[in-house]
Amino acid sequence: MSVAFQFLVHRADGRARAGRFGTPHGPVDTPAFMAVGTLATVKALDPDDLRQMGAQMILANAYHLHLRPGDDVIRELGGLHRFMAWDGPILTDSGGFQVFSLATLRTVDEQGVEFRSHIDGSRRVFTPESVMRIEWNLGADVIMQFDHVIPGQSDETAARDASERSIRWLARCAREFERLSAGDDGARPRQALFPVIQGGVHERLRREAVAAARGSGDWVGFGIGGLSVGEAKEEMYRILEVVDDALPADRPRYLMGVGFPEDLVEGVRRGVDLFDCVAPTRMGRNGTVFTSDGRLNIKRSEYRLDPRPLDEGCDCGACRRFSRAYVRHLFVSDEILGLRLLSLHNVHFLVSLMSRARRALVDGSFDAWSREWLARYHSTAQVPSA
Amino acid sequence: MSVAFQFLVHRADGRARAGRFGTPHGPVDTPAFMAVGTLATVKALDPDDLRQMGAQMILANAYHLHLRPGDDVIRELGGLHRFMAWDGPILTDSGGFQVFSLATLRTVDEQGVEFRSHIDGSRRVFTPESVMRIEWNLGADVIMQFDHVIPGQSDETAARDASERSIRWLARCAREFERLSAGDDGARPRQALFPVIQGGVHERLRREAVAAARGSGDWVGFGIGGLSVGEAKEEMYRILEVVDDALPADRPRYLMGVGFPEDLVEGVRRGVDLFDCVAPTRMGRNGTVFTSDGRLNIKRSEYRLDPRPLDEGCDCGACRRFSRAYVRHLFVSDEILGLRLLSLHNVHFLVSLMSRARRALVDGSFDAWSREWLARYHSTAQVPSA
Repeated sequence: MSVAFQFLVHRADGRARAGRFGTPHGPVDTPAFMAVGTLATVKALDPDDLRQMGAQMILANAYHLHLRPGDDVIRELGGLHRFMAWDGPILTDSGGFQVFSLATLRTVDEQGVEFRSHIDGSRRVFTPESVMRIEWNLGADVIMQFDHVIPGQSDETAARDASERSIRWLARCAREFERLSAGDDGARPRQALFPVIQGGVHERLRREAVAAARGSGDWVGFGIGGLSVGEAKEEMYRILEVVDDALPADRPRYLMGVGFPEDLVEGVRRGVDLFDCVAPTRMGRNGTVFTSDGRLNIKRSEYRLDPRPLDEGCDCGACRRFSRAYVRHLFVSDEILGLRLLSLHNVHFLVSLMSRARRALVDGSFDAWSREWLARYHSTAQVPSA
Repeated sequence: MSVAFQFLVHRADGRARAGRFGTPHGPVDTPAFMAVGTLATVKALDPDDLRQMGAQMILANAYHLHLRPGDDVIRELGGLHRFMAWDGPILTDSGGFQVFSLATLRTVDEQGVEFRSHIDGSRRVFTPESVMRIEWNLGADVIMQFDHVIPGQSDETAARDASERSIRWLARCAREFERLSAGDDGARPRQALFPVIQGGVHERLRREAVAAARGSGDWVGFGIGGLSVGEAKEEMYRILEVVDDALPADRPRYLMGVGFPEDLVEGVRRGVDLFDCVAPTRMGRNGTVFTSDGRLNIKRSEYRLDPRPLDEGCDCGACRRFSRAYVRHLFVSDEILGLRLLSLHNVHFLVSLMSRARRALVDGSFDAWSREWLARYHSTAQVPSA
């Protein structure tokens, strides 16, 4: 592993592990949830909010930033860290997921993907090489390979084609990444390229994808893609166990696009170290509050006079100061502070859930703690909300 | 003056004064700009943002809070300070301006105003007495009388009718306020009722309004209403001088709904101590940036690669961290953080402009400083926007 990157597992309990992932912009205590700053801002939040809640690593998106404001613009302004005033570790997703889900009129061949921008319809081409150049311009600490993403319910033939193509694209990403790094003057912090393990819900494909990735380089860490895309939760958990068995124990595993509070705990139980998801901010903007007793929707009239904080056990900047009644008032009145407070609370909820899991791992109580946490989260009668 | 409220003028220079206004929730160093939290939130900002920029007193609106969430709801939740987590001084506007500008189908008579809510069309009645009860429920430190507000260009007859009615309503407000305060158990911090001086652009009416208000009570402070509502700036400045001559020097004067940076400096030069205006947040949400060299609009393409802060002399939370290019990107991408950063910057701009004026008053350089400030602000070639 590169000298700029380290991963140490401090303590394990079953498949679960407490570790520390070192990057050029500082360490990440794992397991950890990364808030998503798609367009170089975690929606409705300030970087100071993220620091104050103990977030260490955040995510941005190569596809979105390439289209707006342009990765060349960000490079000229000193890179993503300076641009968005976040001096901690950043990971950029490659845009594979976006190209295959947001863009229209796409044509895929071995060379890459031709598509039209979802913003202005302009014609664009992403190849493994061009995506590496975009992620190099952005300058995140961890960059993801460009992969071929397919729908969650794809059959084994389609899943195999996409997974094998992703493996071939990994080799091309690695070559271009090496070429770019060789041209580097050394003053710029190094980046680490992560492969993305695909293979849908097909165990054999997942094992083959891990084997192929491991055979093609000494990777700093691994992404696990193509999950939480419509398959049953039990299928996701089963695949995570298969992948956990196949991946090297001394490298961090990042489960892409996951998730909900319960998914994080289930993921940690199956060996995952890093997570990201837009759920806490997107659902927060919709009025949904994560609590230890399940979700609630702050817009409901029952909270009109409720003096309690959003979650009684929470010490986030929203819960320390404001009542449910006040946050409900902000939502009913379309006030921007409401979007901010729920985004703050929900991201804090996931960040602190992962610190709590880490403490339980370190003190040897993780198995019992995680079972109790899941039982409480699932048992309560609060009405789930969008 | 009540023991809970004090006003001391530390230093004067011509009509301008540096003072300190003491309230049950702490002091306000004057001259001061109060950010407007219409619905119990200064739009797009967090109370912590306001504290960090040195804001001491903020404003909320009785009309809006009566309709949503209801002043009874806020009272039940412990009052406005606790509801919005602002432990500094608060002033509530009476809703006179809103009833006469936002509400539809209003009927005005000596008793009060019957109108329909701008939200749901429901029929409501505001009288001097009912408005006092609303402001008492909200519990702000300073509450404004209910007054009869008329368009800025009204002729002398209409302006006289409205001003004389406002004087009669002041007496009714005072009686109801006394009744409410008598029923108080002493545990609740006291409030101060301010008269509103009306009279349009008619000097004689303004002098008569001040004389009538002074003759009817020993007021803690005075509001100056009906300015910056369409009249020429020179007319506003002339009326301010007339009112300054007529008002007692040892009481704070609050120029309602003003203003723009230049209006604040011109107002201080004419004896004003307190200001409020939605301009910094409203214009901020529209992309307009206050700078020492005039306004700029951050959405313009010339800022696409501009690494400079919004205003080079500014030390606000936006300017210390972010480039114009980044803030422009946020606006172009409709990101919420953009609204927050410009609101933060613009409110900070006015708050620190008033501290700067105060420092100049204290050290005896105000006249020269204010002339230079106005010359620079007006001289530059930046294109005004929105």
